[in-house]
Formats: sequence, structure tokens, C-alpha cells
Amino acid sequence: MNKNKPQIKKTKRTTLNRFPNRGQYDTDTIYSILDSALICHIAYVYKDEPRIIPTAFARIENDLFIHGSRVAGNIKALASGIMASISITRLDGLVLARSGFNHSMNYRSVIIHGTGTKVENNEEKFSILNVFIDHLIPGRSDDGLKPISEQDLIDTTVIRYPLNEMSAKIRTGHPNDEDEDYNLPVWAGVIPILRQFGEPITDPKMRHSTPAPDYVKNYHK
Amino acid sequence: MNKNKPQIKKTKRTTLNRFPNRGQYDTDTIYSILDSALICHIAYVYKDEPRIIPTAFARIENDLFIHGSRVAGNIKALASGIMASISITRLDGLVLARSGFNHSMNYRSVIIHGTGTKVENNEEKFSILNVFIDHLIPGRSDDGLKPISEQDLIDTTVIRYPLNEMSAKIRTGHPNDEDEDYNLPVWAGVIPILRQFGEPITDPKMRHSTPAPDYVKNYHK
Repeated sequence: MNKNKPQIKKTKRTTLNRFPNRGQYDTDTIYSILDSALICHIAYVYKDEPRIIPTAFARIENDLFIHGSRVAGNIKALASGIMASISITRLDGLVLARSGFNHSMNYRSVIIHGTGTKVENNEEKFSILNVFIDHLIPGRSDDGLKPISEQDLIDTTVIRYPLNEMSAKIRTGHPNDEDEDYNLPVWAGVIPILRQFGEPITDPKMRHSTPAPDYVKNYHK
Repeated sequence: MNKNKPQIKKTKRTTLNRFPNRGQYDTDTIYSILDSALICHIAYVYKDEPRIIPTAFARIENDLFIHGSRVAGNIKALASGIMASISITRLDGLVLARSGFNHSMNYRSVIIHGTGTKVENNEEKFSILNVFIDHLIPGRSDDGLKPISEQDLIDTTVIRYPLNEMSAKIRTGHPNDEDEDYNLPVWAGVIPILRQFGEPITDPKMRHSTPAPDYVKNYHK
């Protein structure tokens, strides 16, 4: 799994002041949230203004990578060596309490702070871009695709964020109400939020009858 | 629905340069994405650094509201009248192409730019906080809960963002591959991503046997 765990700096930015018992700072917890997620949101500063983008990502060991078109404005900004704040959020449930105020959500959330650097080496880029595909769909990159080309590598910017300043925040379980409110005759509990995957839909433009492979039919994450 | 649609400014920040055909600027499209979502991500600038938080939100007419503890650092910063960039993202599918490069995701994404202002009027706050509950769980605020109290209103900061500078970006459908790649004998298509809700889990601490109401049993969003 992860043999060389990084030293995680617990900084002012990553230390939870509110609900400190929801804070988690160990890499196993954080990486399991990252590896279960499909996208992240990245915040950065552009001409003194906040900017945000949702984007795919992949973790490799103790780095998180994003990628995008070499000519996209947000990718150009992020690749210029500026700081970013990255959020990965999984929602797990709606928490219905006895008081309006105590309604909440169950979630697993990771915030990462770091400065991006462009991956310049083409061999490394090639391998990272294949991990991107497999982060989303394990087994896909090795299934006879047209490989990523020299031109794709030129057209694509890959940015690395070292995973050394981050924290997770997790809420699980039932509502926490004031003792006297438990007498109110209202239903309380959790509605689970599930991320599921539907039956694969074959591209009608397929020119042959290759069936959906097992990694597609049994897709989960 | 929305009788008074705002004039949406199409600005440099909200105009899509990449894939301009994926851009949508009409309120009906944007509001339907907002109203189907459970959380947003907010980016802001704090001491020249980017910050990001995931948080619940609610739309009322042409405003988006967030709320949080009066003493939380991020809420204090956001309530101080600074600019924010807000992202709401729904993922709809994994798009498996014939080339590694053309793999993609289907999604509905909204980005909003705006400056937050604190809601000061307590009556307005009370009504907004109830809409928050109903944005997440329609029908809930009126089901015999302990109402939001004067103290809750003091403890909670509510921030308003006017919805007048925003855009949606939407991708749907199958992969777009190069013509010659359609001959590759590899399965291509879409794995749908579904957000579903599990059977409600009753709080074991309930002191009575009020059954789960219909708006919980039939919950969807």
C-alpha cells in the first residue's frame, strides 16, 4: 500500500477548531477517502480573486495529481507554481434531528494545502495519465485502448501536489440533540446517501460487438 | 417557479473558453442543478492564500445562502464581505472512450462568483434557516421539530450571495473518439453514476415509536 508515509505537518490551516474530535490526520484515513472519490475541487487565487474548479485527480503514493489542457486558463494558472487548496468530499447521510438547529450531514471530507508543480518529464507524464484512467476505472488503461500519444503529452499539463499538509473531517452516526428534545414525538435518524453505478450503456457508435468487460460490468468504487 | 429572473452578467470569469458548447447561462438550467444538489464548495482568499470549504446551501429566488457557526473562522472570513467562488457539481457518468486521452466524465457543474453579505435581520434569518432544512429534506421543518430559537439565531451566521454572475457547464452522452479509433476492438460507453438514498435508519435513542414519515420513506432529490 503506502510504504513511505509522509510526515504530515499539522498547521494552523489544517487544525480543526470547531468539532476538533471530527479531525483526522493519519494518512490511512485520508488516503482511503481520496482513493474512493471521483473528483476534487481546487481553489486558487487569480489576480487577488478566488477561483474554484471541479476536476478529476489521482493519488500516487504521497502526491496528488490533476491534469488538463495546456491552453486552459485555470490549468495555466495552477501550473505556474501557485498555492492551491483542494477539497475532496464524500457525503454519506442526511441527519434528521429533533431540533431544526441540530440537522446535519454525515460526510468524509479532506482538505489539502499545497503548491503545484508541473510534471515536465514525458515518461512520468505518460505513466501518471494512465494512472488517472485507472484511478477512475481500475483495469481500463490496459484493455487495448489507443495509447496516450506524444501529442497528447504535449497538449496535456500534469500538476503535482505533495500530500504533506492536510486533514480529514468525518461525521458519522445519529443526531445529537439536547436531552429534553428526545421527548418530542418526531422521527429522528439518518437517511443514507449512496453513490451507486448503473448498468453500463454501450456506445451506439460501436462498430463491433466487444462485450462490456468485467471491470465495467462489476464497476464499483 | 422563478418569476423574477435576474439579469445574468456574462463576464470574463464565467465565459467558457474551452468547450464553449458545454456552457449554459440560463437560470432555469442553473437553478435546476442548484436545487438538485446537497452541498457546494466555496473558495475564498484569506491573507492572500486560497481557502476552500464544503458546506450545505439553499437557494431562495435569486440568492444562494450558506450558514455556519458565528465563531467559525471560515464563516467569519466569508461574512466579512469578501469575494467567493462557489462550485456545485453533480457527477452523472464515467465516459469510457477508445483512446486513453478521450476518457471523460458526464457532469452538471455550476460556478458562481459573488461577494457575500451577512443577513442581519432575525426574522429573515429564521425563515432562511428553515428553508435550509427543507432544501435538504422537503417537509421537514414543519414536522413538529423544536423550532430554531433566539439563541440559535445569535449563534448562527447566514451569508447571502446574489445569483447574477454564474455559468453552468454540462457534459452528456457518449465518448467522442477520432474516427479511426472506432475500429479498435474495445468496449466503449458510459457507466452511469447514481446518487441514491438508502432505507432510513431510525435513531436507536428514540423514546417513542413515531414511524418514519412519508417525506423520509420516499426521500429523493
